[in-house]
Amino acid sequence: MGIKLTDVAKKAGVSATTVSRVINNYGYLSQKTIDKVHKAMEELNYQPNSMARSLQGKNTQLIGLIFPTVSHPFFGELAAKIESSLFEKGYKTILCDSANNKEKERDYLKMLAANKVDGIIAGAHNLDIPEYGNVGLPIISFDRYLAEGIPIVSSDSYQGGRLATEQLYQRGGRKIAIFTGTNESASPTNRRLNGYLSVLKEHHLEPMVYHFPPEYSPFLKATEIRQILSKEEIDSVFCTDDLTAILVINKAQELGLEIPEQLKVIGYDGTEFVQNYFPQLSTVLQPMDQFVDLLIDLLMKRINNAEVELDNLYQLSVKFIQGQTS
Amino acid sequence: MGIKLTDVAKKAGVSATTVSRVINNYGYLSQKTIDKVHKAMEELNYQPNSMARSLQGKNTQLIGLIFPTVSHPFFGELAAKIESSLFEKGYKTILCDSANNKEKERDYLKMLAANKVDGIIAGAHNLDIPEYGNVGLPIISFDRYLAEGIPIVSSDSYQGGRLATEQLYQRGGRKIAIFTGTNESASPTNRRLNGYLSVLKEHHLEPMVYHFPPEYSPFLKATEIRQILSKEEIDSVFCTDDLTAILVINKAQELGLEIPEQLKVIGYDGTEFVQNYFPQLSTVLQPMDQFVDLLIDLLMKRINNAEVELDNLYQLSVKFIQGQTS
Repeated sequence: MGIKLTDVAKKAGVSATTVSRVINNYGYLSQKTIDKVHKAMEELNYQPNSMARSLQGKNTQLIGLIFPTVSHPFFGELAAKIESSLFEKGYKTILCDSANNKEKERDYLKMLAANKVDGIIAGAHNLDIPEYGNVGLPIISFDRYLAEGIPIVSSDSYQGGRLATEQLYQRGGRKIAIFTGTNESASPTNRRLNGYLSVLKEHHLEPMVYHFPPEYSPFLKATEIRQILSKEEIDSVFCTDDLTAILVINKAQELGLEIPEQLKVIGYDGTEFVQNYFPQLSTVLQPMDQFVDLLIDLLMKRINNAEVELDNLYQLSVKFIQGQTS
Repeated sequence: MGIKLTDVAKKAGVSATTVSRVINNYGYLSQKTIDKVHKAMEELNYQPNSMARSLQGKNTQLIGLIFPTVSHPFFGELAAKIESSLFEKGYKTILCDSANNKEKERDYLKMLAANKVDGIIAGAHNLDIPEYGNVGLPIISFDRYLAEGIPIVSSDSYQGGRLATEQLYQRGGRKIAIFTGTNESASPTNRRLNGYLSVLKEHHLEPMVYHFPPEYSPFLKATEIRQILSKEEIDSVFCTDDLTAILVINKAQELGLEIPEQLKVIGYDGTEFVQNYFPQLSTVLQPMDQFVDLLIDLLMKRINNAEVELDNLYQLSVKFIQGQTS
């Protein structure tokens, strides 16, 4: 199956070596021969194997992306925007979905290395994957420490946590809870938690911290949220992601709680998706387009010069968006 | 950059030919030699280039997916589920985002063919891409005609359109509008429109058809929806996708319309995402898990036997989910 170089040679009436020379642009070739081969390639829909080209030390013009899951609006949007921007620069994207599965992430990383992509942007959530340190490819990380020498593009999660919590306090919140992910120090949501804690401390308020493990289904999380809201005395919730904030709003409405009068809710991320379909949500906006530009810019610098000096951490600022839920 | 076969040979203290023999499993080799080479490969994190293997006619264990955009919940979910299921079968997925751009779709298709994936699942929305007919790879299509001989996995959109419209009628709707995409005959949303029209005809009601071009931003669409709802006498809306239904609900609430008393709304798709975060929405559920199983099952059959007889069209049934908006 598939069109072979020899098929092109036959169609063009030249030798396979000539076709190879046209593809790789070396040796003496008349324009007539070049045109004949190009015409035959076009008619047969033949594409020189980019991997074969990469074995000869040429760029594949392929970039690998490793993200936790494209079915999450934040990563779906980030992946789609990176793909679109790379495509304009002449690169194609191989998108790998690591699904919070460490073995899968290692497998995809090996696959990308084996297929000689020009570079990788990794924004996955699994920790301690030593292969990132030795695949020998330009890598830029999104929001996670991967290995020594791999720059991280991130936003100021500590400041974001402070912004949201301070907003809830300014609007009258005194029993301010936080709904967040796992309690692990390297995670950006943990830095949001630290921002929350610092504001509560300044105002001498008691922290109310609720952790939801990432393996919880939205249904299970919603059930637990309903229990918390009906049992505990809470007047404000800062959620470290927008989807959790939507669950809080749904469950509060089921319980007859008026938003924002009886319960103020602020989310985190501010994807275009959430802004379009939940415009009422108050949230902390992460600078998606700036992430995309910076990730690609740094990666291109590394691809063009493996020895280029880059910072360890690039931290962009976030911004609060006032909706109707706070 | 990257670990080469010769590095493995040096580390293992054998010739490059021996390493190649171990990788490709041919010629006489002692167990001791095999173990030495495997150990060296592991220590160096070396992966035999799957493309080089494919040039030798071996399977790459790579499957290409071409979808319009992973930033849409329906396709993000479908892609994530296909990836997950393929991974369990030992396949890795190269996900391509065609972004409703015909040239991009052709480019990705050529990239997949050039990189010798074992097969392709394509669910993109661009029409008339003749390359699908001659890439010489096993292809299964999702919900679109691609070319002669490429089976289509789909659901019964006509029946789905009938189901939703009949529900609106049964609940008292007499001025039933449809909000749908472009008016092109090959599109599944057009078959939903035909289902809607057939029910209205049976009940001698006047159709009210509103088309929204796919290039409309959600903001523009929402603005137009607000205008329609405030000007026209409509008591029910069937939206041919859930996201449009969410915009209708948001705008109806802004206008002070009570749902479902003054306006009934039914969507279409029923992704897990929408069921989790908009549980109130009445919708027509597409059988996502059955799509995934069938797409992969048919693709595996084609990969194992290029000549296997498959039907042209596999049409799965849909089901209505009663929420609180109808």
